[in-house]
Amino acid sequence: MTSDSEQKRTCGCERVPEQTVSRLPVYRRCLMQASAIGVQVINSLQLAQMAGTNAAQVRKDLSYLGELGTRGIGYDVAALRGHLSEVLGVGERRRVALIGFGRLGGSLLGYRGFFERGFDIVAVFDVDPVRVGTLVDWHGAVPKGLTVRSIEHIERDLLDLDVEIVMLAVPMEVAQVMAERVVRGGVSAILNFAPVALELPEHVLVRSVDMSTDLQVLSYHLSRQG
Amino acid sequence: MTSDSEQKRTCGCERVPEQTVSRLPVYRRCLMQASAIGVQVINSLQLAQMAGTNAAQVRKDLSYLGELGTRGIGYDVAALRGHLSEVLGVGERRRVALIGFGRLGGSLLGYRGFFERGFDIVAVFDVDPVRVGTLVDWHGAVPKGLTVRSIEHIERDLLDLDVEIVMLAVPMEVAQVMAERVVRGGVSAILNFAPVALELPEHVLVRSVDMSTDLQVLSYHLSRQG
Repeated sequence: MTSDSEQKRTCGCERVPEQTVSRLPVYRRCLMQASAIGVQVINSLQLAQMAGTNAAQVRKDLSYLGELGTRGIGYDVAALRGHLSEVLGVGERRRVALIGFGRLGGSLLGYRGFFERGFDIVAVFDVDPVRVGTLVDWHGAVPKGLTVRSIEHIERDLLDLDVEIVMLAVPMEVAQVMAERVVRGGVSAILNFAPVALELPEHVLVRSVDMSTDLQVLSYHLSRQG
Repeated sequence: MTSDSEQKRTCGCERVPEQTVSRLPVYRRCLMQASAIGVQVINSLQLAQMAGTNAAQVRKDLSYLGELGTRGIGYDVAALRGHLSEVLGVGERRRVALIGFGRLGGSLLGYRGFFERGFDIVAVFDVDPVRVGTLVDWHGAVPKGLTVRSIEHIERDLLDLDVEIVMLAVPMEVAQVMAERVVRGGVSAILNFAPVALELPEHVLVRSVDMSTDLQVLSYHLSRQG
């Protein structure tokens, strides 16, 4: 879609397009996988194949982060991975709270990728008195349990725990109210799993996860193959 | 990022950029939400705000699908939604199988968005003899149960059931082997939740879901806010 000559060399990571930002975690995952099998240097074509894109896209995306590769050789896997972690702000780990411990919340807590990618789940909240107080598994650095907390004092708890990001896995009917309480708890980044658009102050970052998006993209390509 | 003058009017949906394809389900969801609250016409700015992007991006993305809006008025919500469903190939519903009924598989089956977006889960497979044979809830058109199937004859079952897409929610150690069996079952589209790159024949469409991607994007923006 874009040729190399269109690349803008804007270092400092200030004006990285949103589409590129979305692909950085993918490259980071691929580099972690490459490291795991002993690869030390990778070129843009190899990285593109792992990431499911093309080499020009890889070069363009990474060019926003500065001059990272060596022409004709490629990228140092460890260095590029470290740089991506830094750019993504996960070099120093992030403190995350999960709100809603239903079926989806349970599967999120069980997902090992969060810890590996730099996220520590430090609290789990639920409204259901049956769930509150129960001990649940969280496989962080040292496997340890978390006690499900009541939402009664969630604003204060989020502040006390210095939570930076909330994963909101609650029913859509209560998502807006709960999101407002989260913001009062000093949290300015929300990953919203409820299928509803949240209305929050401008400074709050919200990303909505729609589990069916990828199925629809697959469906699109199936139709084209047909 | 792109001005209107850069728009290419390439109808026929043949050369839609991958980034645009990824946003079409988002627009479709926004239109469904707009319909639900009685909105009949929507302009690119309104749709952009719902979708978390900008108006120029919306116009550019939709321009790939042909001349859909009316300048100065906007888009007919129902017509655009119908067109997007058609482009995404979900107008006639898709037959999906879920493989792996652990914590993640359970939460996927409980997710109501799949049915609403045109996907019918027609089978659930698991390797665990404790799970095989149990009746599980699937909230489709008529709420009905599905019996968890053994993977023993999964190739034949997938063929018999005319499955088009598989959601692979199995441990990473067995993902590759299971994916190969899925392909032998005539399925050419796989949504892979295991954190591993699958090596499959070229004609097979694979999308990998990394639940931590969105957290990393939030983290990126948190770092920029400083």
